Amino acid sequence: MTNLKLISESKSFGGKLGFYSHPSSTCNGEMRFAVYQPPQANQNSVPVLYFLSGLTCTEENFMAKAGAQRYAAEYGLMLVAPDTSPRNTGIAGEDDEWDFGTGAGFYVDATEQPWHQHYQMYSYVVQELPALIAANFPTQTEKQGIFGHSMGGHGALVCALRNPQLYKSVSAFAPIAAPMRCPWGQKAFSRYLGSDGESWRLYDASELIKQVKYHSPILIDQGTADKFLAEQLLPEVFEQACAAVNQPLTLRYQEGYDHSYYFIASFIEDHIRYHALAFEEK
Amino acid sequence: MTNLKLISESKSFGGKLGFYSHPSSTCNGEMRFAVYQPPQANQNSVPVLYFLSGLTCTEENFMAKAGAQRYAAEYGLMLVAPDTSPRNTGIAGEDDEWDFGTGAGFYVDATEQPWHQHYQMYSYVVQELPALIAANFPTQTEKQGIFGHSMGGHGALVCALRNPQLYKSVSAFAPIAAPMRCPWGQKAFSRYLGSDGESWRLYDASELIKQVKYHSPILIDQGTADKFLAEQLLPEVFEQACAAVNQPLTLRYQEGYDHSYYFIASFIEDHIRYHALAFEEK
Repeated sequence: MTNLKLISESKSFGGKLGFYSHPSSTCNGEMRFAVYQPPQANQNSVPVLYFLSGLTCTEENFMAKAGAQRYAAEYGLMLVAPDTSPRNTGIAGEDDEWDFGTGAGFYVDATEQPWHQHYQMYSYVVQELPALIAANFPTQTEKQGIFGHSMGGHGALVCALRNPQLYKSVSAFAPIAAPMRCPWGQKAFSRYLGSDGESWRLYDASELIKQVKYHSPILIDQGTADKFLAEQLLPEVFEQACAAVNQPLTLRYQEGYDHSYYFIASFIEDHIRYHALAFEEK
Repeated sequence: MTNLKLISESKSFGGKLGFYSHPSSTCNGEMRFAVYQPPQANQNSVPVLYFLSGLTCTEENFMAKAGAQRYAAEYGLMLVAPDTSPRNTGIAGEDDEWDFGTGAGFYVDATEQPWHQHYQMYSYVVQELPALIAANFPTQTEKQGIFGHSMGGHGALVCALRNPQLYKSVSAFAPIAAPMRCPWGQKAFSRYLGSDGESWRLYDASELIKQVKYHSPILIDQGTADKFLAEQLLPEVFEQACAAVNQPLTLRYQEGYDHSYYFIASFIEDHIRYHALAFEEK
C-alpha cells in the first residue's frame, strides 16, 4: 500500500476495519481515514460507500458508533470515513473553535488565507481519497455512494450534486441543508471562501439543486428533537428547492430523535440498504 | 424518580436511552449509570439485562459502541450499564493508574484502606443498583440477566455465580476468567482485598464455579487476536474448572477478533438473544 500507513486494524462482523494515515498532496499534510472491508472483499471487488462526519468528529466516530459494519457486511459494501479536516497544519488558531478549523473543514476548497494551503476537503473527498481507495482496496470504482451527518450531510449532498456521474446515490442524516442561510455555514464560508456569495453557491445543496438534476432520489432523515434543526439545518429549504425543480427527495422527519449518533444508528440500516439497492441497478 | 438525576436522554431504536446520576449509599458518593428502555417498556414491564464494562470505561462506552439497543428493542429487554468505579472520591492517587482505582473498580467490595469506604462495586451492582432500577423503571424484577466485557466479564460471572437466584442468565466477552492468576487481578485484589487469599476466591469465577453450580449454560466469546488473552484473561482455566464440575459452558473462540468494542458489536446479537431466551423459559 504505497503511501498508506496502517495505524490499527480490528476484525468486525467478519470483515476488516482499518485506520490509516497518508501524506495528502491535496491537503498538503497528513490525513487520516478509516476503511471497513466487508467479508465479501476477500473474494471480489465491492462497491464503496463514503461517510462524511460532522463537526468535531474524526475518522473514528462513524465506525465506532453508527453500527454500520453490521449492514455493510450484509450487503457487501466497503465503508470509507475520512477525517473532517486537516490537523496540525500550523495555522494560527486552527484549534480555537469547535465549529471552524480543526474538525470543521466543511468539505470546501478554501480560497482564503491562511486556510487555502491545507483546507481542501472538497477535492480531497471527491478526488484524492477515491483514487487512493481504488489503488489500494478491492473496489468497484464505478459503484460509489456517499452519505454523511450534519456538516457531513452537507458535504455528501454537495459532492453528489456537483458530481452526479461519480456517485450513484446520496443520503444524509440531519444535514446542514442550506449553509448559506445558517450561522454555521455563514461563519465557515466567509472565512474559507471569502465574501463572494457566488462561490458559496457551489457549496450549498439548496442552491446547487436548482441547477443540477440528480439522477436518483435523495434520502434524508431528520430528527424532530434535534436542537440544531430550526437554526442550523433547514431541511425545509432544501425540500422546497427540490420541489421547485421536481427533484425526487424522501425527507423523513423522525419523531423524537436528536442530533446524536444514537439517531444515526437507529436508521443506518435504511440508509445502507438504500445505497446497496442503487448499486444493484444496471 | 427519587434521588435520580437525568443527565441526558436520546431516543434510540424507538426506545429511550438515559444517562443518570444518583447519590449511592453503598459507594458513599455519586454514581452514574445508563438505562436503555426498549419501546415495549412504554406498555409493559420488561426483563433487565445488566452490562458491566471493562477497564477505563464509563457508563457510556457500551451504549455508544456495542450496538446493543438494536437487539434490546427487538427482544424487548431493558439494558442497564453502570459506571466501572466510584469517581472523585478524594482518595489520594485514585486517578493515577489506568488499571486500578478510577475506572477499575473490579466489581469487588474493597476491605482495605483507603478504598473500602467507596469501592463497593460488588454490592452496588448486585443490590443497590437493581433496587434503584426496580423502583424507577418498568421492570420484571424476577427476570434479570448479566453480562460484561473483560473486567466486566469477570464481574458478571462473579455476580451470577454468587447469586444464581438473582440472575437467570450470564454471558461474557473476553472476561478476566481467573483473576487470582493474572497480573490485573492480582494487583487489584491485593490492594482492594488485602493479602488474604481466601477473600480473593469470592471474586474469582474459576474458583467460585467449583463450589456453586449455576443453573444455566454460560456463554463466553473470546477473540483469538486479543492481545490480553494469554496473560490476563485465561478462559482455559475457567473452562477446565467448568468441565471438572460439569457446568455447561459454551466458550467460543472467535478467529481473528481483538479485545475492542468492534469484537463485542460483532457478537452482541448472539448474547442478547441468549439472555432473551433465558427470560422466556418458565
